[in-house]
Amino acid sequence: MRLATIAIDRSDATTAAVITPAGAIPVEGYRDVGALLAAGDGGLAAARAAAAAAHAGLARPLAPGTLRAPVLQPGATVCVGLNYSNHVLEMGRELPKHPTLFSKLPRALAQRPDRASLPAPSLSQQADWEGELVVVIGRRVGGVLEREQARDAIAGYTLMNDLSVRDVQRRTTQWFAGKNIADSTPTGPWLVTADEFGDPARHELVLEVNGEQRQRSSLGELIFDAADLVVYVAQLFALEPGDLIATGTPGGVGQAMTPPQYLRDGDRVTVTVAAIGTLETTFGVPREPARAAQTRG
Amino acid sequence: MRLATIAIDRSDATTAAVITPAGAIPVEGYRDVGALLAAGDGGLAAARAAAAAAHAGLARPLAPGTLRAPVLQPGATVCVGLNYSNHVLEMGRELPKHPTLFSKLPRALAQRPDRASLPAPSLSQQADWEGELVVVIGRRVGGVLEREQARDAIAGYTLMNDLSVRDVQRRTTQWFAGKNIADSTPTGPWLVTADEFGDPARHELVLEVNGEQRQRSSLGELIFDAADLVVYVAQLFALEPGDLIATGTPGGVGQAMTPPQYLRDGDRVTVTVAAIGTLETTFGVPREPARAAQTRG
Repeated sequence: MRLATIAIDRSDATTAAVITPAGAIPVEGYRDVGALLAAGDGGLAAARAAAAAAHAGLARPLAPGTLRAPVLQPGATVCVGLNYSNHVLEMGRELPKHPTLFSKLPRALAQRPDRASLPAPSLSQQADWEGELVVVIGRRVGGVLEREQARDAIAGYTLMNDLSVRDVQRRTTQWFAGKNIADSTPTGPWLVTADEFGDPARHELVLEVNGEQRQRSSLGELIFDAADLVVYVAQLFALEPGDLIATGTPGGVGQAMTPPQYLRDGDRVTVTVAAIGTLETTFGVPREPARAAQTRG
Repeated sequence: MRLATIAIDRSDATTAAVITPAGAIPVEGYRDVGALLAAGDGGLAAARAAAAAAHAGLARPLAPGTLRAPVLQPGATVCVGLNYSNHVLEMGRELPKHPTLFSKLPRALAQRPDRASLPAPSLSQQADWEGELVVVIGRRVGGVLEREQARDAIAGYTLMNDLSVRDVQRRTTQWFAGKNIADSTPTGPWLVTADEFGDPARHELVLEVNGEQRQRSSLGELIFDAADLVVYVAQLFALEPGDLIATGTPGGVGQAMTPPQYLRDGDRVTVTVAAIGTLETTFGVPREPARAAQTRG
């Protein structure tokens, strides 16, 4: 099953929806996939009922620009660095014993899969792409877990382009600043439930910039897989429905190219895992002058 | 003016309140200081009106255990590392050009100033203290700012004990994991408005563990002061009312002692800035077995 968050009639209002071959069917009562997951079995039952009604002609084709981030305001967005063995080994490093974790604020996430913001040019012109598989948590889970319990807590998977502003990221030892530019990080296009997705290791992730392939890797190269990451994070704090764990990116980022290549205003980046779909985003420099932000709401 | 969040009649419900010499006066309509600040001038006017009513006998003495974290769920909790010149210079390092930023999830913050959680002993026994001054944002502010604009965006100041689990923090290059243990980080006891607090550099911060002084420093030793930090963070993303910026800790942490010393179940830690008050917290290992967390709501 594919669970999405969509805009209602081009308004700011949103609803959770099931995506079927015939189009989207709203799941009423839930403003996004996060709210649906927080409702537990009731939310998933409502989604299945909506999907079953697809034959009744209730599905509407998705108009362009309708999709929103599946989880609009995750309670936790935990990201993982250095998690692809091919990338770590090609850099001549040893495989890590623990996952490297950092986080993104809700406001660093783009509200739409199809549009995201580059940093103001006065701050940086080194915005880089990072295509990633994202684990979406479906139930509260914390403490010391078996892998089986961790797997049961995974509602499904979506995609992220973990936008990374390299010069800002490298100013200090901590990556937070370079990873948290406002509205920079798209997620989506939707969540595919874990039962449908199956074993992540059987899938492949591909990222293209303006139609040119930059990243391609089997998800089997993940050093810490989805269950490992849930087990690790759950020792620190309980995970909640709608939390995201972005599993890291394979080799092929812009800063590793010769010469380094970064995103420019208007660049179109796609992140694809065939069993999920494609997260396609146009990146733009915010039109609003930075100084004007102070006067807003 | 001192703005607090307090429990209503020992229930889970909370309200914003003004703290006066005679006790606390609820500011009705706001569940916490964060909601009061988000209401802008209206919220502050309501607080001033409540304070003015103190002579009418409306103030109630604060019962033990009544205070809650001033902002219950900050939209952003940005923390700063390596920000005291005395500490950096004594370590033989150069003064940094940029602040080192990381973040805490809302669930890493303790809901009460007086109680916080140590990590489960199976995870770590190296929980360390870090007394810090915290900037609380009062209005939305983003983009390229003058220091004057940054100062205007500061509602006031509170305190934090930035609990840091050293072995977990040092497992990788990124500090996030060691800084985000559930319920580990107390804030409070309340916010003192910027007009009353005046220039932070005139104040001193003291931390004691079980009555023994461990940290003492002038806030004038901050390398990046409150306005600098607001200017820096606002370039990354707009700050919102109720956001916290923890300004870093001076020398005197437990891991720097010979031999290193860490917090144990039942330890009482106080963080004091005289013009604010004392954040006094008893740290405990969560009584609930870690495994049981999975079955909770």
